[in-house]
Amino acid sequence: MNIRDMKWTPNEKKIARKVFDLAYNLEMEEIRKALREKVQNIESNEGVWQLENYLSDRRKIIDRKYDYRYSMLILVFGQLLNEGYLVEEDILELSEDKISAIKNVAK
Amino acid sequence: MNIRDMKWTPNEKKIARKVFDLAYNLEMEEIRKALREKVQNIESNEGVWQLENYLSDRRKIIDRKYDYRYSMLILVFGQLLNEGYLVEEDILELSEDKISAIKNVAK
Repeated sequence: MNIRDMKWTPNEKKIARKVFDLAYNLEMEEIRKALREKVQNIESNEGVWQLENYLSDRRKIIDRKYDYRYSMLILVFGQLLNEGYLVEEDILELSEDKISAIKNVAK
Repeated sequence: MNIRDMKWTPNEKKIARKVFDLAYNLEMEEIRKALREKVQNIESNEGVWQLENYLSDRRKIIDRKYDYRYSMLILVFGQLLNEGYLVEEDILELSEDKISAIKNVAK
C-alpha cells in the first residue's frame, strides 16, 4: 500500500499525535537550549543577525517537517526516527506495515 | 536647498560616519539587551517564534533606517535624533543648514 494511503485507526491516531508532539517538543527544547547558548556568545552586531538567520532557518525547517496530515505521517515519522526525535519504542503500537514503512523511510 | 542635494565636506563626512556608527551600535546594543531578556523569558515553543518575529522585524527596521547615502543622511539623522540615538551635541560640527534640516526632520 502506498504510504500516503494508509488508514489510521483511532488508537493509532492517538499514538501518532502523542509521538508527534513529543518529537516537536524535544526538537523545540533543543532549539531553546541552542538559543540560550548563542545569545550568551554574541560578540558583535553581526552576531545578532546570525542568530536571526539561525532562527529563521529553524522555523522554515520545523514548519516543513512537522506536517500532521495522515497522508504525510509515515514520511514525517521516518524522518524523526532517522534524526532521533522519536525512537522505535514510541511506535510499537502502530500496525506492522506502518512500523516497517516508517523504518524504511528512516534508513 | 533640497536636503537630498546637500554637499558634505570631508570633515562632515568624517563626523557623519562617526555619528552613524555610534547610533547603530547604540541601537544594536539595545537589541542585544532585549534579546538576552527575551530569551530568559521564553516559556513556550511559541515564544521561540515570537522571538524570531521580533528579530526579523528589527532587522527590517534597522536595514531600512541605516542608509548611509549622503542623499539620505539628513533624513536618517533626523530620525535618529527624534528617537534619541543621536543627540544635538553629536552634530554640532556640521554646517548650520544641515543641523537645522536635521532638527526639522526630527520634529
